[in-house]
Amino acid sequence: MSEDSDFDTVTAALLVIGEEILSGRTRDENVGYIATYLTRIGIGLREVRVVADVEADIVEAVNALRERYAYVFTTGGIGPTHDDVTTDAIAKAFGVGASVHEEAVAAMRQHYADGELSPTRLRMARIPEGAELIHNAISRAPGYKLQNVIVMAGIPRVMQVMLDEVAPRLAKGRPVISRAVRVDAPEGDVAPPLAALQAAHPGVQMGSYPFFEKNRLGTHVVIRAADEASLDSALSALWDVIAKEGFDAGPADDEPGAS
Amino acid sequence: MSEDSDFDTVTAALLVIGEEILSGRTRDENVGYIATYLTRIGIGLREVRVVADVEADIVEAVNALRERYAYVFTTGGIGPTHDDVTTDAIAKAFGVGASVHEEAVAAMRQHYADGELSPTRLRMARIPEGAELIHNAISRAPGYKLQNVIVMAGIPRVMQVMLDEVAPRLAKGRPVISRAVRVDAPEGDVAPPLAALQAAHPGVQMGSYPFFEKNRLGTHVVIRAADEASLDSALSALWDVIAKEGFDAGPADDEPGAS
Repeated sequence: MSEDSDFDTVTAALLVIGEEILSGRTRDENVGYIATYLTRIGIGLREVRVVADVEADIVEAVNALRERYAYVFTTGGIGPTHDDVTTDAIAKAFGVGASVHEEAVAAMRQHYADGELSPTRLRMARIPEGAELIHNAISRAPGYKLQNVIVMAGIPRVMQVMLDEVAPRLAKGRPVISRAVRVDAPEGDVAPPLAALQAAHPGVQMGSYPFFEKNRLGTHVVIRAADEASLDSALSALWDVIAKEGFDAGPADDEPGAS
Repeated sequence: MSEDSDFDTVTAALLVIGEEILSGRTRDENVGYIATYLTRIGIGLREVRVVADVEADIVEAVNALRERYAYVFTTGGIGPTHDDVTTDAIAKAFGVGASVHEEAVAAMRQHYADGELSPTRLRMARIPEGAELIHNAISRAPGYKLQNVIVMAGIPRVMQVMLDEVAPRLAKGRPVISRAVRVDAPEGDVAPPLAALQAAHPGVQMGSYPFFEKNRLGTHVVIRAADEASLDSALSALWDVIAKEGFDAGPADDEPGAS
């Protein structure tokens, strides 16, 4: 079902499952990675939610999000411990059962000796009915894809391998391209000419993101478009405005979302 | 309305407003900070959502969250540019108007010369009816609190000042205390004794968080409790289990959520 579609028609939500993010104990590393990754391959991340390892909360979020977006990615809660409730929640959200999947067990046998494949570890081979596996070469315990819901591990390195594994199976739009410019002037000065510029270039999206550095406010202006010609035209007009207003400006340092 | 209440009865959600987080261009720094901060002062963060700068999406999220949690914190979208739609969305969510607030203008006059207080900048002094201001000493443009919704800037340094300013006005529960132990064994080995330990200590919450480091899987075990005695008792029992199982273990390096 890998097929291209129009700009911004393939949408996604990300559901991060983990009490440790909500308590502040663990700083999430997955949101930024997944946001950048999906933007690059032409899937538009439209919403992120973080919920605790509570079955009812996960069920509700999954069902709300899978109705609304083309894909829902989840991270976390598929390990072997008592607080790993994601698989039960996904099964419940879809109204199906979950049982030990022979292909998942076979994958795990590549990593664990026979004696190590305990009942606890086999919890990680429990997969909701109807799901297809997403293999991972690190821990071997797989993620899975059930209809439009993609269930991945929470450990960043393992999640990243799963994302690489599942990405070719997904529908994608045309990747959004973007350029960022750093303007050393506060948003209040940048806003009026930028609003005029946006009005003159309806085919692109202009965003402005304030920052605070060395005790001064500045503004990152980001232009997003579906094609190079629109992007170049808007960017060139932006530089004209910057020159006319007399702003100090330069390319923004990092553009993880740009392609 | 600053008043103490029981453990975990004061709940909160965080709504991060910003296309730049969803596109991956900006790595969010506010979720971890706010999660840690609220945990420390006795407010339990139960959910986080990230949405784009789209009025209807913000309205829907704010209304869903403010019904469910004691407080809703928002970050982002209160600047002066065309894509700053948070204030209009908050007003709409509450069914009230928004207009230029004299106290907000007065605060901004401390930062801006008369000629600089342009109509664009005055957009930042627009406040929904009935809201009380949350001052900030950096940019002077205030955040605000409308009933149980606390609206803050997206720039981390400005948001942090606003959080300090509003925190004394909030109801708080007893702060959750926690200790984390790093176990150099995969979750599959840690899970069975941990499940037994959790069953024996129903008054505390035990979480296990896998990590992947130097090509090996390990497990952080976190114990959370409302009082020191319960925490110490469970922690002591955990160390007994670790010794009995022969795991390598030690205190976890960082415990931002611990107090």
